[in-house]
Amino acid sequence: MLFHDCTTAPSPRRVRIFLAEKGVRVPTVQVDLRNGEHLGEAFLAVNPEGTVPVLELDGGQRLYDIVGICRYFEETVPQPALFGTSALEKAMVDSWLRWSDREGFYAVMDAFRNSTRGLKDRALPGSQSYPQIPELAQRSKLRIADFFGRLDDRLGSSEFLAGPSFSIADITAMVSIDFAAWMKIVPSAEQAHLQRWLAAVRSRPSSQA
Amino acid sequence: MLFHDCTTAPSPRRVRIFLAEKGVRVPTVQVDLRNGEHLGEAFLAVNPEGTVPVLELDGGQRLYDIVGICRYFEETVPQPALFGTSALEKAMVDSWLRWSDREGFYAVMDAFRNSTRGLKDRALPGSQSYPQIPELAQRSKLRIADFFGRLDDRLGSSEFLAGPSFSIADITAMVSIDFAAWMKIVPSAEQAHLQRWLAAVRSRPSSQA
Repeated sequence: MLFHDCTTAPSPRRVRIFLAEKGVRVPTVQVDLRNGEHLGEAFLAVNPEGTVPVLELDGGQRLYDIVGICRYFEETVPQPALFGTSALEKAMVDSWLRWSDREGFYAVMDAFRNSTRGLKDRALPGSQSYPQIPELAQRSKLRIADFFGRLDDRLGSSEFLAGPSFSIADITAMVSIDFAAWMKIVPSAEQAHLQRWLAAVRSRPSSQA
Repeated sequence: MLFHDCTTAPSPRRVRIFLAEKGVRVPTVQVDLRNGEHLGEAFLAVNPEGTVPVLELDGGQRLYDIVGICRYFEETVPQPALFGTSALEKAMVDSWLRWSDREGFYAVMDAFRNSTRGLKDRALPGSQSYPQIPELAQRSKLRIADFFGRLDDRLGSSEFLAGPSFSIADITAMVSIDFAAWMKIVPSAEQAHLQRWLAAVRSRPSSQA
């Protein structure tokens, strides 16, 4: 098994935190995104999309997707459960995972990739070129503010995002918030429920992964 | 149990097809999106986001998310499995589900909502107003062409999107293609693998749901 990682990038960090919560260690190789290693011939032979994370399994299969990789470990190392246990919990985790991915992670990514000088024509991840859209960066920044507001609401009535237990949805939301901080966009000190939760998830050792 | 549906909308159709594959019937109420019923007081009391589908459970809990609702039925009605069976299959289904959702469904939605006259200031689903970005509609149309090309590649080496079995990923991709056809964007007749698969998934009775 081999995990293709990049310690400075938010996407593989979501998997690293998940693995840390599970107490799983996987042989890891670093991909130097800053110097374009992900778009070089050697890495494109591993993943034609040119994205990290990638998990290579011992049977030769490869998983290119953050959530797919996490699901593999949920099935093979069930404890602690990070996708829920009962039918309702599993449904709630999938719901809040998808919400925090779309309204959080991708909103932050759109804001960042469409406004960062070094990413001109790299407005979407992957091997294809897409031009930046400055208006989309602006709209995405409004969405991030909405994301923070709705997180605060939700966390006013729930200890963690999907319910009483920490889950992959919390990982996704925390990494999205840390990613937004690259642009100096941070939740308000007055968003007390969000701040309470953020202090709790950041105090877990996995958050250092 | 009560399912809040809208027969003309792509999002709840994803759930309807899933339920048809499972052979599950759920009491259903229609929400008239065309006349704004989803943004009226009565429906906002059911779902403050103003989106369908919604599943209300007998215990009073509500699920607002397409995939979360499908996961609930996968757990309570396991056969036929639509999220995979082995750890690797489950990981592959989650990977291709997330891929077809992001590269297919959301690309089509962005193209449609940012270019349709009747959706001015309704560029994103939900109760918030966001202005349209015509450039994003254009970029999203390029992404749909990429989506078709990559589907064709994948289906050249796999019977269904996530492997040898039909799954929720196929539902997501098929509904995305049908949604793109609203804008007269359709796969090419030369994309033979995609056409082979499309004929197969469309011939399933569930596709009429």
